[in-house]
Amino acid sequence: MDSYLIQVKGKASLRDVHFSLHGKGLSPGPGKGRKPHWAVRASDMSKRTFNPIRAIVDSMQVTPNPEKPLISLSIGDPTVFGNLPSDEEVVRAVKDALETGDYNGYAPSVGYQSCREAVAKYYTCPEAPLEAQDVLLTSGCSQAIELALEVLANPGQNILVPRPGFSLYKTLALSMGIEVKFYDLLPEKSWEADLKQMESLVDAKTACLIVNNPSNPCGSVFSRSHLQKIVAVASRQCVPILADEIYAEMVFEDCKYEALANVSPNVPVLSCGGLAKRWLVPGWRMGWILIHDRRDIFGKEIRDGLLRLSQRILGPCTVVQGALRGILHRTSPEFYHNTLSFLKSNADLCYAALSAVCGLSPVQPSGAMYLMVGIQMDHFPEFENDVEFTERLIAEQSVFCLPATCFEYPNFFRVVLTVPADMMAEACQRIRQFCEQHYQSGEGAQELECDK
Amino acid sequence: MDSYLIQVKGKASLRDVHFSLHGKGLSPGPGKGRKPHWAVRASDMSKRTFNPIRAIVDSMQVTPNPEKPLISLSIGDPTVFGNLPSDEEVVRAVKDALETGDYNGYAPSVGYQSCREAVAKYYTCPEAPLEAQDVLLTSGCSQAIELALEVLANPGQNILVPRPGFSLYKTLALSMGIEVKFYDLLPEKSWEADLKQMESLVDAKTACLIVNNPSNPCGSVFSRSHLQKIVAVASRQCVPILADEIYAEMVFEDCKYEALANVSPNVPVLSCGGLAKRWLVPGWRMGWILIHDRRDIFGKEIRDGLLRLSQRILGPCTVVQGALRGILHRTSPEFYHNTLSFLKSNADLCYAALSAVCGLSPVQPSGAMYLMVGIQMDHFPEFENDVEFTERLIAEQSVFCLPATCFEYPNFFRVVLTVPADMMAEACQRIRQFCEQHYQSGEGAQELECDK
Repeated sequence: MDSYLIQVKGKASLRDVHFSLHGKGLSPGPGKGRKPHWAVRASDMSKRTFNPIRAIVDSMQVTPNPEKPLISLSIGDPTVFGNLPSDEEVVRAVKDALETGDYNGYAPSVGYQSCREAVAKYYTCPEAPLEAQDVLLTSGCSQAIELALEVLANPGQNILVPRPGFSLYKTLALSMGIEVKFYDLLPEKSWEADLKQMESLVDAKTACLIVNNPSNPCGSVFSRSHLQKIVAVASRQCVPILADEIYAEMVFEDCKYEALANVSPNVPVLSCGGLAKRWLVPGWRMGWILIHDRRDIFGKEIRDGLLRLSQRILGPCTVVQGALRGILHRTSPEFYHNTLSFLKSNADLCYAALSAVCGLSPVQPSGAMYLMVGIQMDHFPEFENDVEFTERLIAEQSVFCLPATCFEYPNFFRVVLTVPADMMAEACQRIRQFCEQHYQSGEGAQELECDK
Repeated sequence: MDSYLIQVKGKASLRDVHFSLHGKGLSPGPGKGRKPHWAVRASDMSKRTFNPIRAIVDSMQVTPNPEKPLISLSIGDPTVFGNLPSDEEVVRAVKDALETGDYNGYAPSVGYQSCREAVAKYYTCPEAPLEAQDVLLTSGCSQAIELALEVLANPGQNILVPRPGFSLYKTLALSMGIEVKFYDLLPEKSWEADLKQMESLVDAKTACLIVNNPSNPCGSVFSRSHLQKIVAVASRQCVPILADEIYAEMVFEDCKYEALANVSPNVPVLSCGGLAKRWLVPGWRMGWILIHDRRDIFGKEIRDGLLRLSQRILGPCTVVQGALRGILHRTSPEFYHNTLSFLKSNADLCYAALSAVCGLSPVQPSGAMYLMVGIQMDHFPEFENDVEFTERLIAEQSVFCLPATCFEYPNFFRVVLTVPADMMAEACQRIRQFCEQHYQSGEGAQELECDK
């Protein structure tokens, strides 16, 4: 990592020179005695920036079964099938903003004051009050998470990240030289966090705890009391929380969403969110950070740090900023309701269908737009792991689910629930067929056949 | 920098514990024996991220003269006065993209293939051919520059940056732990680069050379032959070029713009550009990197590095991406022409007016939207420097120009040329009045009075 290998064309032949980045090797003075040669290498940071989903998916060199049309349940983008358009009011708000001509210039790097105010008003509540100054607008929730990590952690520190969890946390952390420590979410407890393990991971170098609720990839939703327990860990250990709440309010009707900050009177929280999922416009790159710091623990220092970092690329598209107030206030309650009813119905369909399949253990979701399915690998001895299982599922049945190795959680796969219902049903039917063809009952007489 | 100061509440009193980040100080094992206390500090990186314009401007605690309306010639945003709206076709293209509903989902992190193709087609030419794969779409030109620096330079390396120059280069470099070396632009040579000095600055740790043409803050435009000389330096020294070409084609009619890549057959170039200035929509945050690498020196490595880095925040707003083809192809030639005629006319007006002012030395621009004015400080002994000069100009005449200390170039100030003509004239008139009130001829009989 520390040395470049440079090929130097000598008079007679190529010779290799090891060349240190840190000045310990060949390092002539400015210009003098230097024999320059082309050796442009990508930075260490760019090499550390690693997207596991891309790496795993790109390595899955597999052709779908040409006799069956591909059903892709892999990407968390609710717009791909056209069955979940955004609300008319959302589109109209952008058109209105565009037509005023008032939103073409530079906004402050943290967003227009009036738009930050609109977000603050929308999310404020008595337990966790917000004002415009507590809101930073960002280029998508990804940038919100990037800025939050960048301000909270130094290289060499560590962060606590859920497993299974969204891969971006690790991608960003490694890119920044920050260590990742995983705490487990427990499928048998509806993906609640293993609190004891979480607390045991905290050390003097822990910069923050990431909590993702509702969860990608689990589709789980923490209860108020579980959130309180998480906050209690953070409070005892004095670790601030980065709450990834991009699926805020996206919970099924039998369930209540609670923002983490609402149960956190003392632990400071950076809540990251955005328009992507709930308003079904992930490409618009409109995200935000809500700063909750009622005990003044972040203080001016973290706020100033976020402001400075935001000046690097100057915030999100101004036209979408100009539409924010309209989007937040004019979107119809029916729109939210319809999206969630649809997701719930697909979740029920998928859970019921896959529960009946020998060798699979789906976990019922309560929100977001995903469902995780356990693979009883000992019943599928043909496949080495979840990556091979899902690879073969593509090859034979043209159904593409992400192996949960992408989320640091082997032996599961993730199903995206945003596809049209008939496609969902067809996909489940094909998964069943696939499993029936490959399921093998355990060895030894004691073990029962699948009785599903 | 390496140690935190933590206040620990002991039983009797507060005691201070110095606590090392790097584990050399008090560093108990995970959880065990740790007595956690709140001590959340902003990261070193956020502290290194420093915007000199903000720092200088924020420190200018000055009230404009209440008897004169403020004329702000400080911000490089052509939209603030409403006299330079974007082209109708630009706005229509976004509206069209919005209405299709096809641009709401995630795009690839480097942009939609079709939109990258549109940019490639627009900028390709026989000397410097481009295909879609050579284009990355970014969240504004700022992110283009950020990604280009991030992929080319490691902490501890250095980059060559023009002085006077746009402050973002230094802001980003220091944020990343990269050293900045300044090469001078020479006002007496229409702001051409001091090539000898430039070459002398290159050393074994030089990661890239930044060339900004047309220039902010100078409004200068390099000739083809000067660009060739710059490329020759880079070629001899084997240093890749980051060309900040956000003002591409924004040159006055007596002048020709040449893209740096057109004269660079062997030096690899990352050209950063965007819609901000030429299409007058800086807030839309649509930028790009054009990769010119005809000798395969960047190779797959730099391309892959850029791709990986782009996955951190996932590219620019998809609706603006969807409008790109229309914006590039349907904007009328008159629109470009009118913008430049207007800027040229303001430049002429401002140059003529300020040339006639004792103690000022404006430098005639050839493009972009700025004009630099030298202050003969020895004739203004009341003011310590350009910051104080511009501060007092606000206080007395309510005219706000940025002191060129913001661009690492003291004793100048920058005038933004996008204001309505009558305001431009009024501003020049007030600057003249200000200078007349404060101008002092040199001491000693030998020195002549100003004969302007």
